[in-house]
Amino acid sequence: MKPFLDENFLLQSKTAEHLYHEYAAGMPIIDYHCHLDPAQIAADINFSNLTDIWLRGDHYKWRAMRTNGVDEQYITGAKSDWEKFESWAATVPYTLRNPLYHWTHLELQRYFGVHEILSPKTAKTIYDECTQKLQTPEYSVQNIIKKMNVEVICTTDDPIDNLEHHQKIKQSGWNVKVYPAFRPDKAMNADDVKGLNDYITKLEAISDTAINDYTDYLAALKKRHDYFAANGCVVSDHGLEQMYAEDYTDAEIAVIFKKIRAGQSLQAIEILKFKSAMLYEFAIWDHEKNWTQQYHLGALRNNNSRAYKEIGPDTGYDSIGDFTQAQALSRFLNKLDSTNQLAKTIIYNLNPGDNELFATMTGNFNDGTVAGKIQFGSAWWFLDQKDGMTKQLNTLSSMGLVSKLVGMLTDSRSFLSYPRHEYFRRLLCNLFAEDIENGELPSDIEWTGKIIQDICYYNARNYFKF
Amino acid sequence: MKPFLDENFLLQSKTAEHLYHEYAAGMPIIDYHCHLDPAQIAADINFSNLTDIWLRGDHYKWRAMRTNGVDEQYITGAKSDWEKFESWAATVPYTLRNPLYHWTHLELQRYFGVHEILSPKTAKTIYDECTQKLQTPEYSVQNIIKKMNVEVICTTDDPIDNLEHHQKIKQSGWNVKVYPAFRPDKAMNADDVKGLNDYITKLEAISDTAINDYTDYLAALKKRHDYFAANGCVVSDHGLEQMYAEDYTDAEIAVIFKKIRAGQSLQAIEILKFKSAMLYEFAIWDHEKNWTQQYHLGALRNNNSRAYKEIGPDTGYDSIGDFTQAQALSRFLNKLDSTNQLAKTIIYNLNPGDNELFATMTGNFNDGTVAGKIQFGSAWWFLDQKDGMTKQLNTLSSMGLVSKLVGMLTDSRSFLSYPRHEYFRRLLCNLFAEDIENGELPSDIEWTGKIIQDICYYNARNYFKF
Amino acid sequence: MKPFLDENFLLQSKTAEHLYHEYAAGMPIIDYHCHLDPAQIAADINFSNLTDIWLRGDHYKWRAMRTNGVDEQYITGAKSDWEKFESWAATVPYTLRNPLYHWTHLELQRYFGVHEILSPKTAKTIYDECTQKLQTPEYSVQNIIKKMNVEVICTTDDPIDNLEHHQKIKQSGWNVKVYPAFRPDKAMNADDVKGLNDYITKLEAISDTAINDYTDYLAALKKRHDYFAANGCVVSDHGLEQMYAEDYTDAEIAVIFKKIRAGQSLQAIEILKFKSAMLYEFAIWDHEKNWTQQYHLGALRNNNSRAYKEIGPDTGYDSIGDFTQAQALSRFLNKLDSTNQLAKTIIYNLNPGDNELFATMTGNFNDGTVAGKIQFGSAWWFLDQKDGMTKQLNTLSSMGLVSKLVGMLTDSRSFLSYPRHEYFRRLLCNLFAEDIENGELPSDIEWTGKIIQDICYYNARNYFKF
Repeated sequence: MKPFLDENFLLQSKTAEHLYHEYAAGMPIIDYHCHLDPAQIAADINFSNLTDIWLRGDHYKWRAMRTNGVDEQYITGAKSDWEKFESWAATVPYTLRNPLYHWTHLELQRYFGVHEILSPKTAKTIYDECTQKLQTPEYSVQNIIKKMNVEVICTTDDPIDNLEHHQKIKQSGWNVKVYPAFRPDKAMNADDVKGLNDYITKLEAISDTAINDYTDYLAALKKRHDYFAANGCVVSDHGLEQMYAEDYTDAEIAVIFKKIRAGQSLQAIEILKFKSAMLYEFAIWDHEKNWTQQYHLGALRNNNSRAYKEIGPDTGYDSIGDFTQAQALSRFLNKLDSTNQLAKTIIYNLNPGDNELFATMTGNFNDGTVAGKIQFGSAWWFLDQKDGMTKQLNTLSSMGLVSKLVGMLTDSRSFLSYPRHEYFRRLLCNLFAEDIENGELPSDIEWTGKIIQDICYYNARNYFKF
Repeated sequence: MKPFLDENFLLQSKTAEHLYHEYAAGMPIIDYHCHLDPAQIAADINFSNLTDIWLRGDHYKWRAMRTNGVDEQYITGAKSDWEKFESWAATVPYTLRNPLYHWTHLELQRYFGVHEILSPKTAKTIYDECTQKLQTPEYSVQNIIKKMNVEVICTTDDPIDNLEHHQKIKQSGWNVKVYPAFRPDKAMNADDVKGLNDYITKLEAISDTAINDYTDYLAALKKRHDYFAANGCVVSDHGLEQMYAEDYTDAEIAVIFKKIRAGQSLQAIEILKFKSAMLYEFAIWDHEKNWTQQYHLGALRNNNSRAYKEIGPDTGYDSIGDFTQAQALSRFLNKLDSTNQLAKTIIYNLNPGDNELFATMTGNFNDGTVAGKIQFGSAWWFLDQKDGMTKQLNTLSSMGLVSKLVGMLTDSRSFLSYPRHEYFRRLLCNLFAEDIENGELPSDIEWTGKIIQDICYYNARNYFKF
Repeated sequence: MKPFLDENFLLQSKTAEHLYHEYAAGMPIIDYHCHLDPAQIAADINFSNLTDIWLRGDHYKWRAMRTNGVDEQYITGAKSDWEKFESWAATVPYTLRNPLYHWTHLELQRYFGVHEILSPKTAKTIYDECTQKLQTPEYSVQNIIKKMNVEVICTTDDPIDNLEHHQKIKQSGWNVKVYPAFRPDKAMNADDVKGLNDYITKLEAISDTAINDYTDYLAALKKRHDYFAANGCVVSDHGLEQMYAEDYTDAEIAVIFKKIRAGQSLQAIEILKFKSAMLYEFAIWDHEKNWTQQYHLGALRNNNSRAYKEIGPDTGYDSIGDFTQAQALSRFLNKLDSTNQLAKTIIYNLNPGDNELFATMTGNFNDGTVAGKIQFGSAWWFLDQKDGMTKQLNTLSSMGLVSKLVGMLTDSRSFLSYPRHEYFRRLLCNLFAEDIENGELPSDIEWTGKIIQDICYYNARNYFKF
């Protein structure tokens, strides 16, 4: 019986242990997509207690607590930080087999040196010990990032963000690179005409551009794209239910844009055309600048309108959808490829039933110009756990070249999520080792180790060209 | 090499054996959804022979026999019970790796003490031995239920059922509780206007209500809902291809109802609106009474019209569909939740490609009022086997709290299906044990055992509140 | 640690080794669906070098090379055969965990006795050694087929093919049977009215029939169907995105056909009706002649229009789609079954998310007349690898009778693909052995061995009736 979560966690053979400890563990981290707050990094803040850093924004934990029968007062409500922590500690023993159980104890170990199991019995001691540590300089956010051997971070930023925090971090000379990513979801959200108009007004201000028509709108957004590039940005990102690739003419979009500015509601087909047009334009700019464009597909968001009204978006009420994906994805990528304007692209899939579709779709647009040009991205959100990662890695292996994968990312809002890279690396090493043990791969440790280092670090470094 | 189907069947480690034998095996059975015939229980009948109890209504076996090239005469046709059994015995050796192979031998062991493998060679001996036993008092249906340590049974009943058998069982003082479940599929089946009208006529009689309009119709159904409650019912159930959650107004439904009563055919959108309205009303009543509502989603039924004409529904011609599920499910649950009228809910999924969708969707509507309020139900029908159960348990574990699962149910028409609970429990213990063996869970046997007992028994007892 | 790809490759227990070597390995091969070129077989050609036989037509390898960053010049372009081989050899070490890594080394071993790992270091030696061998009589295509213990080959042929090569092979008295298969994809491709008209013109010539209307068209195609039968054909095949089963009348199809002949473009619904009609007619003929009809469903083809223009179809730009499958499949099979005109049928599924749907759908139409009449076909194309085969075999096992499966096929354009049968057999034996080792099947090696031989060989022989 293996001990729980020791140094050989998830490594089921000597070969796996060797691959992980000798090849994977020491690789730096390039976290090319996350939702960390650059303001907090720039200010190098300390969190005030364990609830503050660990529970405040973590909708994974909130869902588990709600499922466990915890009242919302103890989750996002008025109860004290300690009471909230106590409720979480009471929930943890019921999260057996959920990734939260692993994340929780991995994070306690790696950041705080706490090796106990969190439960009502240990809650007070752990809370006090960690809170005390959090108030020391060693636990400023910059220091906990450094502790995790992070080399590059890409945050997620709206085109109208002024990027002042990124600039401040750069000027500070801190040796972890923190770049923005261009995420224009709001700029194409024609489902909400009112919100989009408000957005356009803000864009006018920050871009110092009068936006009277669609041409102006594109020009203003392009200015921001240029500005992001000037601030070190080399990746864009999009959160979409599915790809939009409807036929349209610029004339049609110009008319739709006028309707938006006039506050008129749009028909479904108009919304679709508008989104298709915007996605296409962004992609062209990404290609011009040799950026990498990322698409996170498949989430069905904001399912619970009561909770949305009370506590807003990104609070644990999103789920996996069953959108049709193949044809629009094919049309979108093909349109760009047909004029040789398809940028490096990473496509993330949220419904594992579609993994094979995504793995094979990406293969259609690799043209030999860049190794692994079109990537089937690592397991994401609900899939960011043992089963989900394993499926993604196996499907990619069977239907593409896992050796060219640019590896893991946290996609997290939490400064305590970096052990997800470790988790991914352990699983990765174990999969390769299992094949070697079973005689399905040659016992060439050196070559396998090189491939693993590529996936953990070098592929990303070579691919993104920060 | 492990012996076939011995006391440690499906238990692949000492930890698994320990968890199963010490914690799971002794738990009583709460079979909260099945299709047993309450009349047979009330009359406490004996079946006349092994074909009678085992093959007569079992479309799983029928499908296997047809695939094996057996003529229908030997399946549902005119051949003698012995000839049918002989055909089944000749098929069994070809069912290797199908769950039927396990069910068959598990049922022979547990009910009849027969440890031989069924084949043409052993068919006669087994048939005679079991048939002889079946004619003894020990094998009356009440006694074979008791033998399996069953505490509660929920049958599946139409609103127009008078529940006389449930009443008779209750009056008899038998210490296994047999409750009805409210299954109003026919009451909303607007695909068949003629059938629905016939149904409404019967409803008028049993509810002693003149049904002239939609308001009357709801009132009559509500009366039955109340009557079921008065007879101990605390669960409803629905068999649907997908959830129906179309927008409608009561005025529209009133018009549609008039068309139904006039025998006019309906447009697709009208059928959809009618079903949406009915589902909503039932759900409101379920919430008022603190019942648990169950939805079995995803079956594509009656594919074979030739067989349907000859031998009717539920005879082995149903299969797994690929209906779109997420959006309607979200809308339906959200509409109820938005007014805080969402009852405890169990959603069963038939297409394992949608497991992740279902597991995450249920998480959107847990509000902390009841632990595990919205359940992703146990593997069902075609999925009620090792692979299907394992997938359901693993997905639920990764995306929700398996610790709060209300466990297994037979969903069966057969009195010999109770070992499915045993099968589920063995798999469950093996999964937890595997994680402990691999160092993915702490070796805390006592706590793990408690969680397993919760899943096998206590969660259901606390959840349904019979 | 097992050695890589030794005689016990993929066999993880003594039981697996025993089942494979004693029962499976010696079975002849019936390759009932492939894309080999009958002209090359008839001429009994030798390939000129290893690139010629191994890389020239293999779009699996091409995709891997493109993903690895190889320029198209070295794949399908103007570079020399040796330069192309060198690029492939440089890619192979990056294909770890992709089936190409296994196929590559299995083929080098089985055909050429080469046991080294292909890499830039070994490329020259291997290329020279294999090229030399390819030029000897032992390596004529007929001899390499014989070497693999092949008994029957079914090629894939258009109705307008004159089958001269099949006739020549037959007349030669060669003891491997090479039969045509009737694949009328072009005859129903109403998406391309121009292409379809050209096709009809060619059909007029070869069938010696003036085609003035739909009736003539059917008559001409039926003549070809008869002609194929006269040349030993007993299988048809169809490559479709999804089944087409729209309602139509013959009068409607007659009108649509006139529009086609007039070169008028068709509406989507007309195309669908036309395809539905054609599929139905072909199926009726298949039933009349007791053929087996095969449907390959789920591919989304020709995604990359730039590549299509440059190098044409079947060059590595196809992928897995997410088409809706269940209802049309049900309607199609049911329509034929309802008049008892449903031929033996094999349905191949390309999206593993739909495996359970396909496995259960086939079960709806087994009527006991032929064992395994409706088959859920073996893993295909992208799924023709360890994970894909395992999923297909496990799903079929859980939801049907794997014992009645007609086994593996190469579906390949390459004369070097026969080890895929070996690969399948090893996996199959390992799965049964694993169940025996785990106590999930009785340790009855003789019976299990019989079942395995049935799946590898006898089922196909009995089913197709060549």
